[in-house]
Amino acid sequence: MDDPQAWLTLARVPGLHAGPVRKAHIDPRALLHESPATLAALGLRADHVAALRRPDRDGIARDERWLAGTGRRVIGWGTPDYPAQLAHIHDPPLALFVEGDVAALSLPQLAVVGSRNPTPLGRDTAEQFARHLAAAGLAITSGLALGIDSAGHRGALQAGGRTVAVLGCGLDRIYPRSHAELAREVTAHGALVSDLPTGTPPLKHHFPRRNRLISGLSLGTLVVEAALQSGSLITARLALEQGREVFAIPGSIHNPMARGCHRLIRDGAKLVETVHDIFTELGALLAGLRLQVCAEAPDAQEVSGPTLDKDYEILLDALGFAPASIDTLVARTGFAAQEVASMLLILELGGRVAQQYGGLYCRRLPGKD
Amino acid sequence: MDDPQAWLTLARVPGLHAGPVRKAHIDPRALLHESPATLAALGLRADHVAALRRPDRDGIARDERWLAGTGRRVIGWGTPDYPAQLAHIHDPPLALFVEGDVAALSLPQLAVVGSRNPTPLGRDTAEQFARHLAAAGLAITSGLALGIDSAGHRGALQAGGRTVAVLGCGLDRIYPRSHAELAREVTAHGALVSDLPTGTPPLKHHFPRRNRLISGLSLGTLVVEAALQSGSLITARLALEQGREVFAIPGSIHNPMARGCHRLIRDGAKLVETVHDIFTELGALLAGLRLQVCAEAPDAQEVSGPTLDKDYEILLDALGFAPASIDTLVARTGFAAQEVASMLLILELGGRVAQQYGGLYCRRLPGKD
Repeated sequence: MDDPQAWLTLARVPGLHAGPVRKAHIDPRALLHESPATLAALGLRADHVAALRRPDRDGIARDERWLAGTGRRVIGWGTPDYPAQLAHIHDPPLALFVEGDVAALSLPQLAVVGSRNPTPLGRDTAEQFARHLAAAGLAITSGLALGIDSAGHRGALQAGGRTVAVLGCGLDRIYPRSHAELAREVTAHGALVSDLPTGTPPLKHHFPRRNRLISGLSLGTLVVEAALQSGSLITARLALEQGREVFAIPGSIHNPMARGCHRLIRDGAKLVETVHDIFTELGALLAGLRLQVCAEAPDAQEVSGPTLDKDYEILLDALGFAPASIDTLVARTGFAAQEVASMLLILELGGRVAQQYGGLYCRRLPGKD
Repeated sequence: MDDPQAWLTLARVPGLHAGPVRKAHIDPRALLHESPATLAALGLRADHVAALRRPDRDGIARDERWLAGTGRRVIGWGTPDYPAQLAHIHDPPLALFVEGDVAALSLPQLAVVGSRNPTPLGRDTAEQFARHLAAAGLAITSGLALGIDSAGHRGALQAGGRTVAVLGCGLDRIYPRSHAELAREVTAHGALVSDLPTGTPPLKHHFPRRNRLISGLSLGTLVVEAALQSGSLITARLALEQGREVFAIPGSIHNPMARGCHRLIRDGAKLVETVHDIFTELGALLAGLRLQVCAEAPDAQEVSGPTLDKDYEILLDALGFAPASIDTLVARTGFAAQEVASMLLILELGGRVAQQYGGLYCRRLPGKD
């Protein structure tokens, strides 16, 4: 492993990124040995220069203790393991802390982001898209947050795929704490990443910074449900600035969690109804990566569920998108109550409908269980 | 009244429209006196020429009997009452049969169209948009069909506004028959229109033709819910060809009735969440018509409902967009069951929630009753 201490020192210079060294065509580690005048000439601020000359020994010792654990690395900008997609953004971190499989960071990734308070159907949708995208070979990148983020990670894990979680704190902390078990699964089937050194708490201003890594690691960003003025819209804006694709899933105008997506679509994001829409858009990029994703992509039929017998289709149509009782379904279809009950049972066993409180039936997404 | 017989004769030449006479700068009635050679030189087909020379006397007599009824007119292209918006399309009808207020045809209109089988929320949405648009001074134009069309007409009527129904059959028939009462209300507060003479049945191929009149009479077309491959998408395509605005309301990707709208948005239709979005887009056109619509437009707040006390907002948020029981709401909010029950009662009286089968509560659109 290459000289972690130099990278740890660089990681502890707040606000310093790889932009200046890229411009100067020098190895970032050279910054540790340059004179203040040279550093200033490279465009470094006075506080950067001061921090480089007075390394935080205690902090670095803490990072080193963390690095001693299994599967932990610090990856420097310009070294072979540093993810190429991220290296190309305007302000790539000088060092990345990684726990898990470093190679996951260099897989073609799609970011799946959205509200921390999605609707249940929004959560299902995020999970379903992530499952299909991961099954097709894309790693799913997100922020380990509640709601859509975790549904994205979980969908990828369900598919036996790869997933990357970018944190807004040091990797010796997991935020939110309730996702500690999810973080362990992500580590086992992908990687946790942060550009923040150990001991850094999840402060509010870290999240836009974390979001730039999520979009920067990814070929594109899929926003599933998002309120206006939400962090997901920041991620989407960063993705656009980084020249990456932005995908948004529309929703009912009566669902406030769809407003952010509608704003993005108005502003030019691709309206996405199926995973196919994403593959179509990313086709050229994925071909460039010599990845045969399209051949493995589930078709729209699969997402909307297998074709059913006509009577079952009539019954599902009658059920619509709001819960209904057997009596209501009898009235809507003209089928006998006994028929409706037995068809519902078969649909329930097939995972196409669910019984909820009050004996009402509602639709489920195909493939959910 | 000007010479109805000439217009009735012209109306009974199948497929002949005002394009050729507009190009030749002649009065359409002159066609009745021209030689076959002159008619051919004007671009009329042989079957047009034959029909002009052998008028359908019985049909015309039937039209005349219909015209003898109250409030019935035939309006010729180029005469003062012919609606200017429609006169400008590529293929305006030579004559329009009208029952009701002819002046309604010359009001600034917005077409509200969509599926004959919308979801209940789609129907509510159409009605609500039509109500607000009509209250602001736009006439609502549609096709009297089941589903979204009739919701559009009804919304306009509820607002005490004006509405225009274009039929795909002669005005001596009403299709669908179940809308006979609605047709009477439209006649009393606007107009029924057709370019098809009396006795013409509602044949399938009349509907694209009818749709071109709906879009042609209107400044723009709002598609509320529509399947792919539906008549509403034809209307929207015609609106674009006629240089009119197309507006589409997005919906859940799990709602097949949203697919048509999503297709339109991908193809460049304006994504609409509130009536404001429509007024913003039509602003310049409406200013040109010297109409002060914007001042009367309901604001987004009104569409999303008045602001409630914080606890009520918490309860409505907990209710979300799927029905829930009191127990579920207690679990979601942490409020006492008694509190939840009394708040739901107040919200129900205020028209913000409704109780449905099984004792579940669901949200309603503000202003619905």
